[in-house]
Amino acid sequence: MARRRTEKVVTTTWEAGTSVRRPDEVIVEEPLEIRLDDVLVATTMRTPGHDFELAVGFCLTEGLLGDARVQSCRYCATGSAVTTEFNVVSVDTGGRAPTPTPRLGPATSSCGLCGSATLEQLGDRLPPLADPRPPALDVLAEVPERVRAMQPLFDKTGSVHAAAAFDASGVPLVVREDIGRHNAVDKVVGKLLLDGKLPAEGHGLYVSGRASFELVTKAWAAGFPALVAVSAPSALAVATADRAGILLAGFARHGRLNVYRPR
Amino acid sequence: MARRRTEKVVTTTWEAGTSVRRPDEVIVEEPLEIRLDDVLVATTMRTPGHDFELAVGFCLTEGLLGDARVQSCRYCATGSAVTTEFNVVSVDTGGRAPTPTPRLGPATSSCGLCGSATLEQLGDRLPPLADPRPPALDVLAEVPERVRAMQPLFDKTGSVHAAAAFDASGVPLVVREDIGRHNAVDKVVGKLLLDGKLPAEGHGLYVSGRASFELVTKAWAAGFPALVAVSAPSALAVATADRAGILLAGFARHGRLNVYRPR
Repeated sequence: MARRRTEKVVTTTWEAGTSVRRPDEVIVEEPLEIRLDDVLVATTMRTPGHDFELAVGFCLTEGLLGDARVQSCRYCATGSAVTTEFNVVSVDTGGRAPTPTPRLGPATSSCGLCGSATLEQLGDRLPPLADPRPPALDVLAEVPERVRAMQPLFDKTGSVHAAAAFDASGVPLVVREDIGRHNAVDKVVGKLLLDGKLPAEGHGLYVSGRASFELVTKAWAAGFPALVAVSAPSALAVATADRAGILLAGFARHGRLNVYRPR
Repeated sequence: MARRRTEKVVTTTWEAGTSVRRPDEVIVEEPLEIRLDDVLVATTMRTPGHDFELAVGFCLTEGLLGDARVQSCRYCATGSAVTTEFNVVSVDTGGRAPTPTPRLGPATSSCGLCGSATLEQLGDRLPPLADPRPPALDVLAEVPERVRAMQPLFDKTGSVHAAAAFDASGVPLVVREDIGRHNAVDKVVGKLLLDGKLPAEGHGLYVSGRASFELVTKAWAAGFPALVAVSAPSALAVATADRAGILLAGFARHGRLNVYRPR
């Protein structure tokens, strides 16, 4: 089941009027359909690999599982072409998960929403973390370099996101790479869920790139008391982390970081 | 109608055991509901501002307009709270656009898809560019620095995406910043559409960050013969640009760039 995650291309590097052709590798991006109890809940453009973890993690972090347990996960070959059968994953809870509703399209009822309304809705689903104990700041500041040493796809392509779960002493427990950082986070969370290691009490979540509202939400759903990003958070991410009780760090680089709080 | 695009927060910078508190600014992220002929077609987390351009650009680049013309665009205050009325935009074609179908959820019929199937579907909608004439490589290589000088939100926050349309001599015509680079691209394309300047023949599209399949698709839908990214493309992006006839450049930095082609 080992899927190709990089692909060979021809790169012409241009600089100061000179062109040099050479073989190169870029990251693979393919759609994955995620089904929950046989209902399509999302199509995401992802890098193949760890697809079950991605599907399970997505269902958890998007609040689709409710109190249901994942009973099984399988590739779903509904298409005719053999080559496509690994791009559809079905997560099964025996029908115990709430009936999924489409998030886009005419059936969606949300309207007139704003940042604070979005945060209110989220608060209805997720209680603040009880007794959050994030890793210490000096530990958090070291995480980017530790994870960087565990990113083989980045080494090959020079550009792919990574997410990692790490323990109280900063040791990366799960590292996942993907063209999308949301996918990388879902793969990490899915791995922890399948291993029976959620909620992620006392642990931290690392993500390359920025910290958006959605990423803080995913960290919250998985119970991480700390989220460390390489770049900046959004205003809504700061407000959401504050509501959740999550320590939100950004610009974590070279043993230095910023901790963000609402004014 | 000037919306707040950055928000004040309190940042604690930690380095080598020392903490320094200071006021800081982060980028605003809020949901925008996009409606086409009163049917909800998307909710996107975006930085407020240029919302009409974003909504119109999204409808065009996602192929939702068909041959229809945009007749009007308005904020749609269906919610009860005054503060939320600027987070819903309705694009109106007088009912001439094809009836939108939800892209997620039970109503979606796509199944068994893969990268090449995705590309096939796209090819059904978009013909290859006729006679593409991209700007010269030395022009493309200069674009990132030119656009960088026109990113006030990046200057304030240190982290926000930008997209730009530029002419054959590399002059940026439209520059937009947003927490999401898809949004930034849609705002640029929407501005050109509203100004009657599409298809973008002879022009280039610049985007900070990576070049994904979706971004190449958006460039294709708007008729750009060149897409320049600061980081790497995905394999599907390379294949899609090749199919479209778009020159795809990545790692455009410091007067240097890579041009990508399938093997």
